[in-house]
Amino acid sequence: MNNAIYAQSGGVTSVINASAYGVMSELSKLAPNTNIFAAQNGILGLIEGKIYDLRKTKKPLELLLDSPAGMFGSCRFKLPEIENLKFYEDLFKILDSSSIRYFFYNGGNDSADTCLKVSLAAKKLGYDLCAIAIPKTIDNDLVVTDNCPGFGSVAKYIATSVKEAALDLKSMCKTSTNIFVLEVMGRHAGWIAASAELANAKDSTYVHKILLPEINLDEENFLTGVESDISQYGFCVIVASEGLKDQTGAFYSESTTQDSFGHKQLGGVAPKITDLVSRNLKVKYHWAVSDYLQRSARHLVSRTDMEQAIAVGKIAAEFALNGKSGVMPAIRRVSNDPYSWEIVEGNLTNIANKEKILPFNYISEGGFRINEEGTQYLRPLIQGESFPKFKDGLPIYEQLDLHLL
Amino acid sequence: MNNAIYAQSGGVTSVINASAYGVMSELSKLAPNTNIFAAQNGILGLIEGKIYDLRKTKKPLELLLDSPAGMFGSCRFKLPEIENLKFYEDLFKILDSSSIRYFFYNGGNDSADTCLKVSLAAKKLGYDLCAIAIPKTIDNDLVVTDNCPGFGSVAKYIATSVKEAALDLKSMCKTSTNIFVLEVMGRHAGWIAASAELANAKDSTYVHKILLPEINLDEENFLTGVESDISQYGFCVIVASEGLKDQTGAFYSESTTQDSFGHKQLGGVAPKITDLVSRNLKVKYHWAVSDYLQRSARHLVSRTDMEQAIAVGKIAAEFALNGKSGVMPAIRRVSNDPYSWEIVEGNLTNIANKEKILPFNYISEGGFRINEEGTQYLRPLIQGESFPKFKDGLPIYEQLDLHLL
Repeated sequence: MNNAIYAQSGGVTSVINASAYGVMSELSKLAPNTNIFAAQNGILGLIEGKIYDLRKTKKPLELLLDSPAGMFGSCRFKLPEIENLKFYEDLFKILDSSSIRYFFYNGGNDSADTCLKVSLAAKKLGYDLCAIAIPKTIDNDLVVTDNCPGFGSVAKYIATSVKEAALDLKSMCKTSTNIFVLEVMGRHAGWIAASAELANAKDSTYVHKILLPEINLDEENFLTGVESDISQYGFCVIVASEGLKDQTGAFYSESTTQDSFGHKQLGGVAPKITDLVSRNLKVKYHWAVSDYLQRSARHLVSRTDMEQAIAVGKIAAEFALNGKSGVMPAIRRVSNDPYSWEIVEGNLTNIANKEKILPFNYISEGGFRINEEGTQYLRPLIQGESFPKFKDGLPIYEQLDLHLL
Repeated sequence: MNNAIYAQSGGVTSVINASAYGVMSELSKLAPNTNIFAAQNGILGLIEGKIYDLRKTKKPLELLLDSPAGMFGSCRFKLPEIENLKFYEDLFKILDSSSIRYFFYNGGNDSADTCLKVSLAAKKLGYDLCAIAIPKTIDNDLVVTDNCPGFGSVAKYIATSVKEAALDLKSMCKTSTNIFVLEVMGRHAGWIAASAELANAKDSTYVHKILLPEINLDEENFLTGVESDISQYGFCVIVASEGLKDQTGAFYSESTTQDSFGHKQLGGVAPKITDLVSRNLKVKYHWAVSDYLQRSARHLVSRTDMEQAIAVGKIAAEFALNGKSGVMPAIRRVSNDPYSWEIVEGNLTNIANKEKILPFNYISEGGFRINEEGTQYLRPLIQGESFPKFKDGLPIYEQLDLHLL
């Protein structure tokens, strides 16, 4: 009996459960005798023996396609080095007690590290295990894969939201607000901030400044640009990454400023950028921080993202059934227009703990916008809609009934 | 020749343009010889003679149904008292030069004041004018009307977003984040914050604490409650109104933040509440501020809200054609379940400058939640979806071609 376990790790996305569905539906199809388990809260559930037995689940697994965030719970947890054999012996005892030979770990670069360690330790200890990582991160910062499931939906959410907010600002700028700052996620890589560029079109500019972690903020240049935008358009929309850095390379939101009462100022990049602009240009402002809203917005996922999230799950199942370990399904872009892609095999030794920042050739001259090459990369990822089912005015997001082993 | 002018005022909504469509389509149907104009940036466009002539617009007016914010521009501008006859004489000269006899002003309580002044001044000066206000405000704080077009869509957006974010938090709470704070609009009335309660269901709690402007924050009680939520659920979702007040009745966020003009600026309740909780309970946190995103989210409007926004526009046109002035179409709730409503006539003298806060009988004992009576009021307003058209991954939001007179 070869059984399988699936687990979710790191920050969740609006389509991570679709990858779970991909794995589980493909296993059921190709290896119907395989029992499928899911760890509660990622690798922690395995360590603590908190494992859901999906044979006991009465509701249909299709519900996974319709609910954001991690149905089985996630965790942020770093495994010990594989020299710590005792730890891994204990882990494999737990796996062996349920005849688990397939291990699927759905996460980002830290999670690829976890999966790689499990794979290497299994080989070292002679435990028969296929450990497969499944890519997932809104940050889009995994190497080897062209893009990461989860990112396309955030990109769609940010581009849509900023387009809407820009129309709002445009309505109000005559007598009221002139700048709007939206803070988005992406602590080390500017992919999410860059996606705001998709709101722009040839004949209409909705987003005027994009502040990326890849470009240390030159406040003077920035302010000159904002002033010019306001005089040209009457308003200026700024999208700022939470990972924006100052001229010294330190996080912009971390440098200490004090308010008029001498308190250290609270809040993130958006209020700080707003403060910078309003102090210097004396304009009225609004700011928003999308935070969790952007990465859990199942109501606005990209159908392309949804399809890729399912596909990496399915191929992960195939990899495991073919006896592979220490690998990850990676998305390879075949062409931009029409967009086509395929799934290839990526080796976790090339993926774990590595980070892909926004390439400089995607950033426009001046550093405050994304160029045509960048939007050509980004645009296919937000194509298509996949609305959830609504009931009584709200998305249903029905949760599976989960029962521990 | 009796012509008509329409203008938008105050903070915009995701369905205010639908009211414009209601007015214009009904006028075209019932009085096809009436020329329809729209003021650029509300009453300011009238004062400055910046008036769009919709006969010159080539694109179909149906585009108004699909685009958020104010297609014609809005303003925040207080008219002088009607004793200032010279001002109104000048205003009516501008109207008269285009034979304008119907004036439609689409806004909240300040805008009702504007419309009332125009109506009274016209009577006083013997200018033949039907001045009709059309209700619009996400704040839902107009009196006489049961609810305000614009609010239902924000309520739907907030309830959906907080449900999504709660699922995210639930996934992460084992090893990472335990509290999430979402700041929402509503400076004086807690309607928007209250709508978060709609995310909750009998068997699942997604929103644990709602902080309303109507209830001065008792920090100790609040912290005890949050601690209890975390121990019961593992996490706590808090929705806070920007208008939250401290025990002295001062704005909670105002104590330390001033804008560039030295005015106290609202916004920043979320980081302050987060700071309060994390300092006292030592838990990890995330916070979001939805700001403009909530009121411009055309991609998630309530179909009920959309229908009512169109209806008040149409009835406003009928009021004008029937020679009424100084009135506003108001929504009257006929029944809760099944929800039914009708449009009645409200007198602007009862509406202008008045404010309807959240009734205390909608607030649960303890002050941190909304009770059954409150949700029975709120729930009908978010029913139904009305997705915009998408192209290339994004809502189209095509703008009308507008040409000045």
